[in-house]
This record gives sequence, C-alpha cells and structure tokens, in this order.
Amino acid sequence: MRYSELKMKENFLLNNRITLITSLFVILMSSISAQVVNKEDSITIRSLYDAALLNGKSYDWLDHLSNEIGGRLSGSIEAEKAIRYTESELKKLGLDKVWLQPVMVPKWTRGVKEYAYIETAPGITSTTNICALGGSVATPSGGLKAYVVEVQSFEELEKLGRSAIEGKIVFYNRPMQANLIRTFEAYGGCVNQRYAGAMEAAKYGAVGVLVRSMNLRKDDYPHTGAMTYGDTPPDQRIPAAAISTNGADYLSSALKLKSDLKFYFKQSCRTYPDVQSYNVIGEITGSTYPDRYMVVGGHLDSWDLGDGSHDDGAGCVQSMEVLRLFREIGYKPKHSIRVVLFMNEENGLRGGRKYAEEARLRNEKHVFALESDAGGFTPRGFSFDTDEKNFAQIESWKSLFEPYLIHSFVKGGSGADIGPLKDGSIVLSGLRPDSQRYFDHHHSAVDTFDAVNKRELELGGATMASLVYLMDKYGTKSEFGVIKD
Amino acid sequence: MRYSELKMKENFLLNNRITLITSLFVILMSSISAQVVNKEDSITIRSLYDAALLNGKSYDWLDHLSNEIGGRLSGSIEAEKAIRYTESELKKLGLDKVWLQPVMVPKWTRGVKEYAYIETAPGITSTTNICALGGSVATPSGGLKAYVVEVQSFEELEKLGRSAIEGKIVFYNRPMQANLIRTFEAYGGCVNQRYAGAMEAAKYGAVGVLVRSMNLRKDDYPHTGAMTYGDTPPDQRIPAAAISTNGADYLSSALKLKSDLKFYFKQSCRTYPDVQSYNVIGEITGSTYPDRYMVVGGHLDSWDLGDGSHDDGAGCVQSMEVLRLFREIGYKPKHSIRVVLFMNEENGLRGGRKYAEEARLRNEKHVFALESDAGGFTPRGFSFDTDEKNFAQIESWKSLFEPYLIHSFVKGGSGADIGPLKDGSIVLSGLRPDSQRYFDHHHSAVDTFDAVNKRELELGGATMASLVYLMDKYGTKSEFGVIKD
Repeated sequence: MRYSELKMKENFLLNNRITLITSLFVILMSSISAQVVNKEDSITIRSLYDAALLNGKSYDWLDHLSNEIGGRLSGSIEAEKAIRYTESELKKLGLDKVWLQPVMVPKWTRGVKEYAYIETAPGITSTTNICALGGSVATPSGGLKAYVVEVQSFEELEKLGRSAIEGKIVFYNRPMQANLIRTFEAYGGCVNQRYAGAMEAAKYGAVGVLVRSMNLRKDDYPHTGAMTYGDTPPDQRIPAAAISTNGADYLSSALKLKSDLKFYFKQSCRTYPDVQSYNVIGEITGSTYPDRYMVVGGHLDSWDLGDGSHDDGAGCVQSMEVLRLFREIGYKPKHSIRVVLFMNEENGLRGGRKYAEEARLRNEKHVFALESDAGGFTPRGFSFDTDEKNFAQIESWKSLFEPYLIHSFVKGGSGADIGPLKDGSIVLSGLRPDSQRYFDHHHSAVDTFDAVNKRELELGGATMASLVYLMDKYGTKSEFGVIKD
Repeated sequence: MRYSELKMKENFLLNNRITLITSLFVILMSSISAQVVNKEDSITIRSLYDAALLNGKSYDWLDHLSNEIGGRLSGSIEAEKAIRYTESELKKLGLDKVWLQPVMVPKWTRGVKEYAYIETAPGITSTTNICALGGSVATPSGGLKAYVVEVQSFEELEKLGRSAIEGKIVFYNRPMQANLIRTFEAYGGCVNQRYAGAMEAAKYGAVGVLVRSMNLRKDDYPHTGAMTYGDTPPDQRIPAAAISTNGADYLSSALKLKSDLKFYFKQSCRTYPDVQSYNVIGEITGSTYPDRYMVVGGHLDSWDLGDGSHDDGAGCVQSMEVLRLFREIGYKPKHSIRVVLFMNEENGLRGGRKYAEEARLRNEKHVFALESDAGGFTPRGFSFDTDEKNFAQIESWKSLFEPYLIHSFVKGGSGADIGPLKDGSIVLSGLRPDSQRYFDHHHSAVDTFDAVNKRELELGGATMASLVYLMDKYGTKSEFGVIKD
C-alpha cells in the first residue's frame, strides 16, 4: 500500500477527527437502515468497542494464562492456578458476586514425551512426530511395534475385516477437506477417526491406532484431542496416537513402497481417579430481573501441548471482558449476567454439565447463553440454537453490527459447555470467529499466545458484549412468552 | 472445541459426502435468495473455490517470490528476478499472450543497516531500532546527533515555530487510532507524518525527522514507506527515519523525564538515476469482445526489509491465480482478461501510470479493473469505485458470495496501480481482506511468508476470480451503456 499525495490532503483535514465522524456516521446509518434500532444502541455499542480496543484487558489476562500458567489440562496444577488467577481477576472487577463451583473432573496425564519411528527394514528407521490422544492408554513400557494397515474410514475397516487387521496398527488417514469454507465442517468430517478410531479398530483385533492430525496445514505438529473407548473392556483397550500431517503423508507414501513396514511407538499416558476442580463464576446481579440469568463463557481447561491460547483461553478472557466492559461504560444490566469459566470441556464436559445441573436444582431461569470456543480470531458473527421467533429478533439487530464488520448471523450449534442448559426456551449462541487458521493451532504445541492478535481478540470481546447488551435490554422472545412479568 | 458423541453419529453418515451436500445447498440457497442469479453461476463459483483450495498454485508462487527471491525494491536485482520468474510462470499457464511492458523506475537503496541511540547524558546511551524512510537522504557519514522535539501533528509544528524546532530532530509520534475497525482508516489518519513529515519539519529548520512506525502493535520493528520532499531544494532535504512503536514509546517517556536528551542516527541511503524495469502482463483473449479489457493485478515491487509477502506478493500471485483458475475449470471469458503485475507501486507508481498511458495510446477500452493490495488475509469483500448503476448490479450478486463468507460490498477506493485507468466508465475495485493484522507486518522486516496462511491466500484468489467471472459474463453497466454492441 502506497499513500498517494491526493489522499494526503484529505488527511490533513481529517487528522484526529476520524473517530467522531465515524461514530456519527455509524449512528446515522444504523437509524436509516433499521427502524427498530435506536440511537442509544448505536452509541452504547460504539462505546463497548471503543473501550475494548482502547482499554481492553483481555490480552493481558490471556498473556498471564498462557505465558505465566500455560496448558491447563483438567486436574493439573496449571488448571488449579488458572482457577485461582481468574477468580482473583474477577474479584478486582467489582462484580456483585464471584465464586467457585465445585466439580469433580477426570485426570489424565501424558507422561514422558512420546516416541515413534517407521521401520522399513530391520535397523532402517526414521522417527516421526506423534502424541497420545487424550484418554488413551499407554503402550507397553517397551513400546509397541507392528505392521500398519492404512484406512480412510470405518467402512473400509469393516470391508478389510479381522484377518487384515488383527495384530496390526490401524492408521486412519482421511484428511480434512480443504474445499470446505468453514473449517469446522472439515473437522466434523474427520474427527470420528480420532474420537472412535481405537474403539472401532479394537473390534477387529488391532493392537494400536494412529490418526492423521486434524489439521488442514502440512506441518510437523501432532494434534491431540479427546477419544473414547466406549464399552470396550479395559483389557481390550489399545493405545491411540495422533501423527502430524507431514508424518501421515510420509507414512502413507512409505506404505505404498513397502506395505510390510513396521511402526513403533511408545507412550506412557495414564488415567487417575477423578479429582476436585471448579467452574469459576462471576455475576453482575440484574436490576430488573435479578432471577433471570444470562451466561457468557468459555472453558478454562485446555490440552497440554501448547498453552491453550486459542482453545480456549481466548474465550475465557473475552467472556470476562464482557462484564468488565459493562462496568467500564457504566451499563447496569436488567438481567443477572454471569461469566462462567467452565472446567473440563476438553475431556469430559463435567463443568458444563455441573453448571446446568446446579441451575436446575436452584431453579435459576436461564434465558440466554453465549459461548466463545472457536479461537481468538477476527469475529465474523454468531450462530444461534433457537427458534424462528427469537432468531427474527436477533436478525433485526444486524445493522447495528455492520460497522464492526460482523455480518454472519446463522442458525446452528452454540458451544459444548452451554449445551446442557438447553431447555426449549433458552437462546443459545456461539461466537463465530474467522476459522481459516484455527486448526493450524488447535490441540497442538502451536496453540500459543503469539498466535493470538490483540485486536482480533478484543473485537471478539466487544462483539460478544454488544450481543449480550441487546439481549439484556430487549430480552429474548421466549422469555417474555414464557415468563409472566 | 470438543467433539461430542452425538455429533459423531452424524459424521458416520456424512463422511465424504459433505462437499456434494454443501454444493447442492449452495445452489439451492442461491437460487432461492436471488432470482437474478442462476444455477450456472453458483456451480461455476463453487468450482473456482474448489480448484483454488484443492489445487491452488498461488501459495507455491508466493513461496518462490518470498523465499527464493525476497524483498523486491524497484530497480533491485530482486525486482528483476521477480519479473523473469513471474513471466516464466505465466507462460506455463498457456495464456494467449505474455509480455513485459518497459517502464523506467526510481532506484533508491538503503545502504548499510541504520544505527540509532538515545543519549540521556554524555556517554549514557541506549540503542533503538530505526529504518530510513523510502526516498530519504542519508545522514552525514558520521551520523547526526541533535535535541528532539516531539509533536503529534503539523499544526503543533506550526504552533511551536522555528525557534523551538531549528537545529533539532522532529519526532512525530501520533499513533494509529486503535478504535477504528478498518485499520486502513487508522493508517490514513497518521501517514501524513511519514509522507510529508520531513518536508514540513525542514520549513522550520529541523535537521532530521523521526516518525513513529505505522503499526498498531507494540513491537520493536521499524516500518518504512514512501516519503516526499515536495519542492524542498536538495540542499535543504533532511534525513527521515521510522522508529519502532516500542522505541517511540520509550523515547517519548524519556523526553518527559529529560527534555534535553539527544538522539543520534546514521543512515546511508541513496537515490540513483532511474533504471529500466517492467510490468509483467499475461492475457486470455476474449471470445466475444477481444478488444475490451478487464485487468486483475497487484504490484510486484515491495519494500526491502521483509520479503514483501503480504505487500504485495500476495496480490500478485492471487491475480495470476485468477487466470490459472479460468484455465483449470475451462472457462473461456468473453472479454480479454489481463493479469498485470505492476512495478514500482511503493515509491513512484510508475508501473500503474505506464500501463494506463499505453492503454490510452493504443485505444484499448478497459471496462473493469480489480487490484489486490491489502494483504493475503481472509477475504471479506470488495470496495468499488463506480456509479450507482454498476454498484446495483454488483450488489445483486451478493448472495452468490455468501456461502464463501464474503459479505462486504461497499463503495470506496480500489487500488493505487489501477487508479490511473479511471476514465468515468471503467469499474474499479479493490479486494478487501480482513485488515486487523495487516499493519503488524506492512513495510517491515516481518512482512514475511510465514505470516501468510495458505487457505486465506487461496480464498482471496478464488473470490477475485468469482468477481471477474461475473463481470465478464454479464459485462459492466457502463460498458453496455457506452459501447454499442
């Protein structure tokens, strides 16, 4: 970009007045384009974005979570530190209440770094990067070496049958589809290999499982993630690891040249009894409807390979920021607004289940919940799990978001942690950031703080705050249909 | 993001069929939402995105330009290599014509790496990162040391007057405004300091100029860029350098503690006589209107600190990809479609001017031009420099872009290189990628290949190809109003 002389003359005039002009323009445009939307909303939303971009705290919080604490696997010391840190930071915001909600969580540890190689002939080996999948059992202490059978799907596994699989390592190598625009769809099309691959392969007598990393990029980082053994008896559970995309391509090529090569891997991961942990909750009590709740949240736990900045440190600090922004601009919500930092989304969803269970026990009426758990990238919009009536109201707010380049309001899923709150009337929503880079980092050693851009993170928080503000001010359609005022 | 068991069951069914379903859905939605848009367009656009994401060449081209060639300052050996490389790659695409268009360009060189320090007392110094602005003169060979006066604007300079400025270094420290959503607006609000700062300061007898880098991030990288001396006589031209944002903040703090500190800097940049260079042009000749031209382009030159991946290697390879995609899917355009890789956008715009001049000399009717020069980030839409009639037609295509999350179609500027083609009837357009990260990299040592994401780059090329396809198929409104068929 070059700066032309012509444009420069304009800038002499504009200089420091751009914000004011932009604000006025935003207000004007909004009032023209949607009758339902009023000036006050435009002004409030502008002030939320200004506060986030000029005086945001989310980036500093994330810096601490990522660089001072690090990866926060459920039941780890880091998860515990993150609970204490975020509780303490929420207390500084002057909220009406801040507390910890006890929840028992699984504890799985990776143990010493995994090791793997491809053996094309006795003594001819090349090492490759793997990591144990979350929840996997260990290999025997001396490791595991076996022939490899490469498949693309469970259907292929079934066709091959026990004779082709027994005693071998099953290598699931179906890649994410690069031509899908939303990368989460590509993830959805592959992740059964990771989640159920070991369980399925064990049925045919496989001794181990290797899964191509859920990553659209070709690189050397293996990506972990949750897996299940389902009803497989403990003595029939086989170890499962992810292999990097480069490693998977290499192994696949090598198998084409020499189908009887062997693969060796060693991992010492282990599952312990459940341990005590907590959801971290902060609340601004509503001025008009103190007993109706709106939740904004992310999950505080993460995988252990990186520092969990995108997944989901970003969602936590953005959610904290929503309440801080309300305090900063002096907005007093009508409903009780809670930030909930859920524990154990990654390998159990215990925090999300616990929160919903307690809400039901206490008869707390939840009318809206918003989760950020798709990375701290530039926000593009929201998805909503709700009915037409509520969705129509939300769509009437679209023009308020346009000045901030938030365009996408679609029906769809929301977030794993808030899912258990679903009751037929609550409006559930998920922030949708740009998804192109997400799976480069997701569940890997490169989900780190340097991959998060301060502005993108802050725009996400402001966008969430703007939606919560509108939801709070106007209420949900279900709320006023269901609850008598 | 955790993958729930419920979702998994769906995926057993979906597996590899997602693309087909997505395609059908896209077609269905498009035909419902906009009558004007037909199925053929949906299918063609889908095939352009598929080809870009599954078989794209832009990333490999950029890899070569960035990592094998590097920064491509006008008149440099790297610029020359880039001309030869892109010409050769375009020839491999089987276009109807590929040629070089001669253009004389300025040649400015940075010389040895700049050196600077802040001296708070004799012998008490701290070094800081600077770089010469493009087109600046050198300091004296032993460097330049002087007192510093910090200002925010030219108005402040005028208020201070000669007595406060004479013999000093003027330090322009007005930061980019973080609360503007489009970062290009924040750039526009600051860049007069860089472009005209030396010229303005020289009027008051300043001996040098230091400019806060045009960067929204706090880091240690100085950002170069074009500057002018205007009519300042050669003997009154003062050296100008950019200081990193961290350096600027440090210097500003230090000045508050000790206003009579001194700043030393040394740079040995130099301007040589103009040299021969070229625009690189490739053409698919139109089947119906061979003498009507549509241009898609970027600029091949870059600054020298990084490798020019975002600015504007990305725009070049995306433009090349547009023609390659047409070849790959077998689309035969009605109009003659040219890719133009312009030389010398950064410090002269000679390539853009030359191309327009030649087009007029040869009486070539240009009906549409599209430039990509805002980084290789996720595309968000386009801006158009055109009239209401043309813009209305373009807006009628919006639904075709929605499946690809392209939402923003606005009136505004286009691109510097295609600007000289403006003639009252040509439709000019600029690709608008997400702008949040752009100025982290722009004109600095961190404008490098690793900062470009393959998918984001490819989505940009496919988005451009889709617009060119529609423009070619339906023609511009001006074209059919002005030209008799």
